[in-house]
Amino acid sequence: MSLTIALDAMGGDHGPSVIVPAALAMLQEQPRLRLILVGDQDVLAAELARRGGTTGERLTLHHASQQVAMDELPSQALRYKKDSSMRVAINLVKEGRASACVSAGNTGALMAIARFVLKTLPGVERPAIITTLPTIQGHTHMLDLGANVDSCAEHLFQFAVMGSVLTSAVDNLEHPRVGLLNIGEEEIKGNERVKEAARLLMESDINYVGFVEGDDIYRGTVDVVVCDGFVGNVALKTSEGVARMITAFMKQEFTRHPMTRLAGLLARPVLRALRDRIDPRRYNGASFIGLQGIVIKSHGSADTLSFSQAIREAMVEVEKDVPQRIGSQLESLLLERAVG
Amino acid sequence: MSLTIALDAMGGDHGPSVIVPAALAMLQEQPRLRLILVGDQDVLAAELARRGGTTGERLTLHHASQQVAMDELPSQALRYKKDSSMRVAINLVKEGRASACVSAGNTGALMAIARFVLKTLPGVERPAIITTLPTIQGHTHMLDLGANVDSCAEHLFQFAVMGSVLTSAVDNLEHPRVGLLNIGEEEIKGNERVKEAARLLMESDINYVGFVEGDDIYRGTVDVVVCDGFVGNVALKTSEGVARMITAFMKQEFTRHPMTRLAGLLARPVLRALRDRIDPRRYNGASFIGLQGIVIKSHGSADTLSFSQAIREAMVEVEKDVPQRIGSQLESLLLERAVG
Repeated sequence: MSLTIALDAMGGDHGPSVIVPAALAMLQEQPRLRLILVGDQDVLAAELARRGGTTGERLTLHHASQQVAMDELPSQALRYKKDSSMRVAINLVKEGRASACVSAGNTGALMAIARFVLKTLPGVERPAIITTLPTIQGHTHMLDLGANVDSCAEHLFQFAVMGSVLTSAVDNLEHPRVGLLNIGEEEIKGNERVKEAARLLMESDINYVGFVEGDDIYRGTVDVVVCDGFVGNVALKTSEGVARMITAFMKQEFTRHPMTRLAGLLARPVLRALRDRIDPRRYNGASFIGLQGIVIKSHGSADTLSFSQAIREAMVEVEKDVPQRIGSQLESLLLERAVG
Repeated sequence: MSLTIALDAMGGDHGPSVIVPAALAMLQEQPRLRLILVGDQDVLAAELARRGGTTGERLTLHHASQQVAMDELPSQALRYKKDSSMRVAINLVKEGRASACVSAGNTGALMAIARFVLKTLPGVERPAIITTLPTIQGHTHMLDLGANVDSCAEHLFQFAVMGSVLTSAVDNLEHPRVGLLNIGEEEIKGNERVKEAARLLMESDINYVGFVEGDDIYRGTVDVVVCDGFVGNVALKTSEGVARMITAFMKQEFTRHPMTRLAGLLARPVLRALRDRIDPRRYNGASFIGLQGIVIKSHGSADTLSFSQAIREAMVEVEKDVPQRIGSQLESLLLERAVG
């Protein structure tokens, strides 16, 4: 399979100044990779020259005259930004000229355009956003992270199927353990949608292990955590907030007086190792799944290191042909349910 | 106002072995406090003797022959445990013999019994669970944490009012900043319930500052974070999970080899200070608000230190007469809305 990936080179908080060096680094790291930088030709050529890079067989520029702003309304971007770097990068996937695209741009616009241009896979009612998260034991995957709010039971079921297929492919797990995010109070245990989704999953051949609670996410109890996008987005952002607070407290405690500063100096390699382990950049690259094509969303604030990680995520999904796998798994599950 | 607090002395993972010493410590600390230990008279008398405590004017025993199990269904507890330590402690509040009760028992049962015995305040549609959380700058309050799922806009509005009143009283803030927890994607920004709750709040005289996202909770952007109980419960448990993971990583990194162990040894006072700052025991004591009485829920696994904190929370709410304040504030807001 061709490993050509289109990059929305104008997207994100830093645009070409991060994406061009990330592209050059990844071409060096991955001999089979080809990249298309999509965006303002002059800007990109200048940035490339500045970084000592050249276009060629493995690196091409593709001009796009517009750019989607980070705060632009998705509907506006969809309607008025038909020659944006984001839209053109997605078009390249649609036309088969790229096998995936990566953007650090406006999440809502990226989802709206990707959905409009690429369409959902047959049977998929709602695309979802999935990401990898660290756990005490390794890592897990969680979806939906904000593409949908108020998901019904069928949507949650489909998220579980899509998450299971992606996890199986990228982690080489035959039967990933899937859990439904719920709350623990008896009787008011969850809402009807979650309970009904559990019933659907129990009847399927997904390795559904039951309800999990918020603290199970980072415990690594399951390989896939399934929830509504509102809940998933809050859980993800809350996690970032807790990590940021603990880091701030740590800094405060280690700089309190000369003795603690000394302790901090001696502990520096350990604290750096710790920071690296909880560094969200290691996990950069959320996938939009359920679409007829691979679209990876990088954090808007991604640096070169973390944008590269999003490109790696795209490569793995291309190599494993994740959309095709999701399509066929969902089709067979829906068929199975239909014939009962 | 009488500062008599009834303790469900049999509740929680550790029962009297934690609650009796916490009671004795608090009586020593707080000269105006009176406590009623509710539970098996023989067990409590024995525990009290073992701890060198005696009953008297400020500490009495009140017998209750039953106990609500931690995994008992709320409906079962409500129906069959009419002489449980939990129920009797709540009855003492109802009868005016105690001005608050504290329990480390089964949350669902405690809420069901409290609601049944004490009733909600006039105008309150749903009671909620609120707790204090640490932030980078200080602390904040968050509700609902699991008493309700699928809250409608009016419920969210009422949670905001109740949270604002409680925060104003316990933190001595005239106009606490109130935020509605939401997700950041434009256009799919939240669901209809959250948007409608925002409209209701903007029309009220609550100091509503707008939507906040998950990472704002620990940033201390607002004094009160309002959300549906499902979302709040997930956010709270997820936070505990992140903190636990980071603590586990820290331990792993500091024990990796002799040099890191040495660094850990030197950094020990700093790490201990850090641990104390993120210790959930410091924030123990969630309030059930919206009821005609004060009910404080302690963590089931609370130790003496943290159960004492829950008693302190009860004392503050008694001194500030939180239920009465909530009732009158809500009444005036609803009236104001009615006369438009």
